[in-house]
Amino acid sequence: MSTTPRERVSVPRATPDDYTREAAEARRDFLHEQTGSSLEHVGSYSFDPSVLPGNIEHFTGVAQVPLGIAGPLLVDGEHAQGEFYVPMATAEGTLVASYNRGMKLLHAIGGVKTTIMDDRMQRAPAFLFESAREARDFGVWLDEHIDEIREVAEATTKSGKLQDIEQYSASRILYTRFNYTTGDAAGQNMTGKATQAACHWIVEQYPAIDHFFLEGNFATDKKSSQINMLRTRGKRVVAEATIPDGLLKEMMHSGSELMYRARAVSNLGGFMSGVNNNGSHSANGITAMFIATGQDVANVAESSAAFVYTELRENGDYYYSVTIPSLIVGTYGGGTGLATQRECLELLDCYGSDKVRKFTEIVAATVLCGEISLGSAVVAEEWVESHDLHGRNRP
Amino acid sequence: MSTTPRERVSVPRATPDDYTREAAEARRDFLHEQTGSSLEHVGSYSFDPSVLPGNIEHFTGVAQVPLGIAGPLLVDGEHAQGEFYVPMATAEGTLVASYNRGMKLLHAIGGVKTTIMDDRMQRAPAFLFESAREARDFGVWLDEHIDEIREVAEATTKSGKLQDIEQYSASRILYTRFNYTTGDAAGQNMTGKATQAACHWIVEQYPAIDHFFLEGNFATDKKSSQINMLRTRGKRVVAEATIPDGLLKEMMHSGSELMYRARAVSNLGGFMSGVNNNGSHSANGITAMFIATGQDVANVAESSAAFVYTELRENGDYYYSVTIPSLIVGTYGGGTGLATQRECLELLDCYGSDKVRKFTEIVAATVLCGEISLGSAVVAEEWVESHDLHGRNRP
Amino acid sequence: MSTTPRERVSVPRATPDDYTREAAEARRDFLHEQTGSSLEHVGSYSFDPSVLPGNIEHFTGVAQVPLGIAGPLLVDGEHAQGEFYVPMATAEGTLVASYNRGMKLLHAIGGVKTTIMDDRMQRAPAFLFESAREARDFGVWLDEHIDEIREVAEATTKSGKLQDIEQYSASRILYTRFNYTTGDAAGQNMTGKATQAACHWIVEQYPAIDHFFLEGNFATDKKSSQINMLRTRGKRVVAEATIPDGLLKEMMHSGSELMYRARAVSNLGGFMSGVNNNGSHSANGITAMFIATGQDVANVAESSAAFVYTELRENGDYYYSVTIPSLIVGTYGGGTGLATQRECLELLDCYGSDKVRKFTEIVAATVLCGEISLGSAVVAEEWVESHDLHGRNRP
Amino acid sequence: MSTTPRERVSVPRATPDDYTREAAEARRDFLHEQTGSSLEHVGSYSFDPSVLPGNIEHFTGVAQVPLGIAGPLLVDGEHAQGEFYVPMATAEGTLVASYNRGMKLLHAIGGVKTTIMDDRMQRAPAFLFESAREARDFGVWLDEHIDEIREVAEATTKSGKLQDIEQYSASRILYTRFNYTTGDAAGQNMTGKATQAACHWIVEQYPAIDHFFLEGNFATDKKSSQINMLRTRGKRVVAEATIPDGLLKEMMHSGSELMYRARAVSNLGGFMSGVNNNGSHSANGITAMFIATGQDVANVAESSAAFVYTELRENGDYYYSVTIPSLIVGTYGGGTGLATQRECLELLDCYGSDKVRKFTEIVAATVLCGEISLGSAVVAEEWVESHDLHGRNRP
Repeated sequence: MSTTPRERVSVPRATPDDYTREAAEARRDFLHEQTGSSLEHVGSYSFDPSVLPGNIEHFTGVAQVPLGIAGPLLVDGEHAQGEFYVPMATAEGTLVASYNRGMKLLHAIGGVKTTIMDDRMQRAPAFLFESAREARDFGVWLDEHIDEIREVAEATTKSGKLQDIEQYSASRILYTRFNYTTGDAAGQNMTGKATQAACHWIVEQYPAIDHFFLEGNFATDKKSSQINMLRTRGKRVVAEATIPDGLLKEMMHSGSELMYRARAVSNLGGFMSGVNNNGSHSANGITAMFIATGQDVANVAESSAAFVYTELRENGDYYYSVTIPSLIVGTYGGGTGLATQRECLELLDCYGSDKVRKFTEIVAATVLCGEISLGSAVVAEEWVESHDLHGRNRP
Repeated sequence: MSTTPRERVSVPRATPDDYTREAAEARRDFLHEQTGSSLEHVGSYSFDPSVLPGNIEHFTGVAQVPLGIAGPLLVDGEHAQGEFYVPMATAEGTLVASYNRGMKLLHAIGGVKTTIMDDRMQRAPAFLFESAREARDFGVWLDEHIDEIREVAEATTKSGKLQDIEQYSASRILYTRFNYTTGDAAGQNMTGKATQAACHWIVEQYPAIDHFFLEGNFATDKKSSQINMLRTRGKRVVAEATIPDGLLKEMMHSGSELMYRARAVSNLGGFMSGVNNNGSHSANGITAMFIATGQDVANVAESSAAFVYTELRENGDYYYSVTIPSLIVGTYGGGTGLATQRECLELLDCYGSDKVRKFTEIVAATVLCGEISLGSAVVAEEWVESHDLHGRNRP
Repeated sequence: MSTTPRERVSVPRATPDDYTREAAEARRDFLHEQTGSSLEHVGSYSFDPSVLPGNIEHFTGVAQVPLGIAGPLLVDGEHAQGEFYVPMATAEGTLVASYNRGMKLLHAIGGVKTTIMDDRMQRAPAFLFESAREARDFGVWLDEHIDEIREVAEATTKSGKLQDIEQYSASRILYTRFNYTTGDAAGQNMTGKATQAACHWIVEQYPAIDHFFLEGNFATDKKSSQINMLRTRGKRVVAEATIPDGLLKEMMHSGSELMYRARAVSNLGGFMSGVNNNGSHSANGITAMFIATGQDVANVAESSAAFVYTELRENGDYYYSVTIPSLIVGTYGGGTGLATQRECLELLDCYGSDKVRKFTEIVAATVLCGEISLGSAVVAEEWVESHDLHGRNRP
Repeated sequence: MSTTPRERVSVPRATPDDYTREAAEARRDFLHEQTGSSLEHVGSYSFDPSVLPGNIEHFTGVAQVPLGIAGPLLVDGEHAQGEFYVPMATAEGTLVASYNRGMKLLHAIGGVKTTIMDDRMQRAPAFLFESAREARDFGVWLDEHIDEIREVAEATTKSGKLQDIEQYSASRILYTRFNYTTGDAAGQNMTGKATQAACHWIVEQYPAIDHFFLEGNFATDKKSSQINMLRTRGKRVVAEATIPDGLLKEMMHSGSELMYRARAVSNLGGFMSGVNNNGSHSANGITAMFIATGQDVANVAESSAAFVYTELRENGDYYYSVTIPSLIVGTYGGGTGLATQRECLELLDCYGSDKVRKFTEIVAATVLCGEISLGSAVVAEEWVESHDLHGRNRP
């Protein structure tokens, strides 16, 4: 490292309007000057940059992520009903094919049943006091003033509704979770703003508060946590299916008994390894759909947590379920209105208001298809191999 | 759900070549027929689909993800040295600006020091035996035959090198982790193939194996886990900086003491909530860089884990470090060769061979900038607020 | 292992009364015959075995566990006020001395402040349904019928009061936690009985229940868990003290700054290692007091979890707190009425009714004394050493 | 809290010898004076206090913990072979009976198979450096100098043998685990002393070390942790049995299928609740044996962790195993030589040298009996109930 770095040359910005094709091109030219590299493909995009304020700064072009379609996926949900062609943006080979294969299997049995169990987005302020005793007293006060707090919080937002405030105490600190429903938006910003307003009001009312922090690591935005797996962040959604053993054998070259045995070994492994997901690869499907539909992809960190639970039924049927406890999605706001993103949501008839629960169910159903597809592929391979290796398949 | 779903209409494929503009357009037309929706922007892309085999199936177009540039980032690494303009693909407003702000601060102090601590990609087969006793004996045998196993495994790959095999026992099962270095590729597929070959050889040699599964949930691909945080998956990398308090106050309107106090509360919160990352939002920067540079974005699930450790020095300086224990990146293979993705890697001079360590360090340095930026923003806000609330800022 | 084991010779029991000195002696004689070993000291006990039904089967004698006294401990609690001589049963050298040393330090600053934050003992039945949808509906029904369920549950117990029922859903299962206050008893049996009665009533009312299990691993009796650390099992209690740096140096040959630095390193270590307690050794004090006072010692498994949170104040004072989130204690029932156990509770004026909160606070205060004592001892050692090693102490 | 507490009256000590009946009596008298309470039963003990130095300070008497005998337990181990009558000290009713019942069942099938998988006791120093880079270099140096370090460490102990040093890096810190075998002692003190000596030598050799702490929370003594569950602390031991369904039905009024179903629900519950043990109640048996045999009972905190893994075999047999990953036991040193404690070890022919592996296997076998006993009891109840409730058992 040179001890005298040259003067820092900032990325150029255009005034008054930085969201134009020209401003983007100026940045690409600047980068070419600085680094010698070209951003020709990055500069190839089909929409007007004027839509981008609120989505990005220093806009320079686009990443073009290949998009494939899996489906039709048959969903037997409460909000999603029928067939869907699912857009998946990825550069990982076999991903689309694998999900597509699972969709074909579960179509054959009448589709994937989906249920949204809970819905809560939160911000988690921490309040500090002279000692634990005052923290406990404040907890009582919070419960008593929930209606007033709700009023203050909800005054900042059209669609956010404060459900309740959870409390977790340690030392002289009261950690809280302000839980909201947030309409069709994912709602992280909305809940932040509402909770901040609530905190200001609380601090004015309650002088015994020594200090507060708007986030005490109890909402764990963009981070996986046991608390979110237990208490939900975003949507908590279950996808279920019961598959006849014969169909597993015919379509997947697998079988319920071997798949179930593999799960037992995998469950113990996951319990030991401290994994946040005892399934196979829900992150794959979720990420591909998130990129395609303009979700905040960094939420894959927490949305990829999952509980897989299966049963080998007496008749050989295989009951398979996946529970996603912190799926963070929106059909409004964020990146959902961008050009390709909106098209992909519209492909699912999921753009705009009153669509987020439908979209939630489609994501969950997709995840289940991928779980069964990879789960059976792994086992099929083993199954074939174990036969080969032990000579039972020899001609 | 109708009891008699109509016949399933699969997504059309072209033969013999499905990777053409025409095939993609045929799919968009099909989707328009099926759903009425248009994929006009999705159909706007600048590269030849013939490069896509191995990256996607049912290619239909692209997701155009807005791309901004943060920087220059000054890195004092062992592989990355100097200034970098960092491409970030995201639709989340303030993300690029926030990272950019941190880069400016750490540029002023001479850059971010980065160190790669470890490097290992794995596959984790589980072996079952008659009883625990045979599992233990097999563990001894494994240790004794590591050289032969290495030879078999490495025969399947040019760049993969088997480092060692970790063992974790429970019941009649021996869980293992086959750890590899994988050159400039992320290496999940390479290690899968090598480990499979090794397992076949092992099973032939060791008849006491009752059964084996290629994956026992001890590599936790696309899933966050304690084992990967402890034992590394991909790169284990540290980024560090020591920032004078005066600079924090001047540039960030924050201060080392208050930031440190906020960390203490946040650390306890994270310990209680069972979070996999006691930092602020590493997933944001990692995701944006992963999309831009063609990484497997689903790996955000595990790559977003992080350990933040800070010290308030006697002179008021603030030592800040972030350790990313399972950062999974490649500069070769996967999506790295696609049109915009390759351009973004080239912008960093990180495309191709012998570049993965450089890229690793740039990602880690970027993450640190984002941590300090958000960390100080949160506290600055509190700081202002706490003054407002307590009357000390009143005119 | 011989394939034909000899016939199994059961431990003899006396009828009609197995709780006599003679019955115990007969068992000791039997064991002598069977094994040749003598249980002379085991046979030396000072109470009448007739008190033992409900405490043990096959009573044969006693384990004599050495008992030492630490104190006086000065407690500034809401239920415990003043000085206490604390009985500790252990065979581990330095344990009593170490706690005693901490008690001396905290006596000098006016005692340990203690606060009980929460109080809830639970049983956690799991209910299975046809699918997730019915599980969710049942959750709504549970909320609506809490009053009737409370009535049924409380009919089985004099002191147990049903507070609320928490719900955690996954797949087609609704996991619940029936939370009770249990008077002066630890209450595991009481809550089991009450919840069983409640479940029977529920199952009669709600035919859609496919199956239920009285325990679904969400109360984690005798096992440490994140859920109990978050949501409390038994008592959630905080002990706090603020210690002048001068006193730490004078009495402990330590110092607040070095202790604080050690904590930072230890906290990060604990976060990585996945520990359930970021303190030093709360299990030591809790175990010794549990054995002495007739608590269910196996609860050390969960009661040993703890959150330590400290602050280095501007003036050098060291604020030190420990939060025990699942301390399971009783002053009535179980082993509390046995001869030496009752004496030890009486020594603390904690035997019988309306004493459990007092006892809780004494345990927590004791734990804090031990934390500071060991914490400063470790650092004192380092401190001396680091000076020795670096030559600063050389004459 | 009074602001002027009376002068602190310390517990009296006798000089020169504090380990006499008189000194103990003097303390009981003192406590009577101070508190008015009597310690008559506490003062009733059968051994000479002169054996107690190194076991307790301020010896005042004993806790008399009721002791029952379960058995015979039939063990098919590598070190324990044949029948054992197991001493259990507890005040919890049904505990001895429940274990006894499981022992009877597993006796009928030829006993419990036990296997010790690993054996390692550790101390976990943390080393701090200028930056991560020096921490990494030190890690290389550590590996290169393991032989010299071993020599220094082993010079402090007769039975401790340094096996290896694990490394875990974060920030500018290298956390290590110095793993030892410790003969027949549990070995916490021995490994502490040896590691301290090693650290002194290391610090002298390696001036780049900025600071070190003898414990960095990576050995988690007296605390449950994922690292110890993964990497072993004390003994890692497995107990296994395969039980015919008919026997479960006849002797336990249970059945393999229902037990297996209950396990699946319980496993998912435990995965969600973040439990450290997916079994039933291993802490019960371990605690009762630990008190009886003079183990360090506070180690129940970590020794109670367990992995239960079962299989429902095709013929209806139920394979049941428990793995205890951090069972900390000794047959020499600590409390093992005390009067009743030694008798109880001798009852098992486990007192003294070369006995610790035998004792380990007996504990593990006992735990398995308790798991199956409670597991089947719970299910039997449900089974009966579910029949009652659904009318299938009605006459």
